[in-house]
Amino acid sequence: MGERIGAADLVAKCPNWEEVEGERDAVRRVFKFADFKTAWAFMSAAALKAEQMDHHPEWSNVYSTVNVVLTTHDVDGVSAKDIELAKFMDDLAARF
Amino acid sequence: MGERIGAADLVAKCPNWEEVEGERDAVRRVFKFADFKTAWAFMSAAALKAEQMDHHPEWSNVYSTVNVVLTTHDVDGVSAKDIELAKFMDDLAARF
Repeated sequence: MGERIGAADLVAKCPNWEEVEGERDAVRRVFKFADFKTAWAFMSAAALKAEQMDHHPEWSNVYSTVNVVLTTHDVDGVSAKDIELAKFMDDLAARF
Repeated sequence: MGERIGAADLVAKCPNWEEVEGERDAVRRVFKFADFKTAWAFMSAAALKAEQMDHHPEWSNVYSTVNVVLTTHDVDGVSAKDIELAKFMDDLAARF
C-alpha cells in the first residue's frame, strides 16, 4: 500500500494527469480512443494490471471515452501505487 | 435504432431499473458483485453484447460495483434497444 504522497507529486511525474477538484486527494485523466473496441481493449488490459496490483481505478466509459480516477483508499489519498498504475495506463494508451 | 418508448415503459418491463432523475430520458441500475473479478466478468460479457448490438451503455466501475445508464442517443431517449440490453444485463448478473 505504501504511504500517501499526494496528487501534486503524481502530476509532477505524470503530466497527463490532473488533480481532482474538491476535497479528495486523487488524480484523473480522460482517455479518448477511436471507438468502443479500442476503449474496451485499453480497459481490459488495465483491468488485468489493476487486479494483479490489487489496486483498482474508479472509472467510467461512454463509447470511446474512458474517464479514470486514481486514489488509494487505504491511505486516503494518492500513493506510489497510483503512480505505477497511471504510468501503466499512459504507456498502454500510447500504443493504441 | 427503433423509436423512443420512454424510461417508464422500460421500467415497467424491467423492474430492477429506475428512471434517471433530471431531464434525460434514461434508466439506470447499480449492480453489485462479490469482487472486482466478478464485476469485470459481467462488464466483459456485457461489452461484447453491446458491441454486437452497436448499442453501448454509459457505465462506471468502482471495484465490485457497476453503475449502468442506458439511453439511445439517436432517439434522444429510451428505445427497444435499451430494453434488450437491460434484459441481457439482468439475466447475466443473475448468473454470477
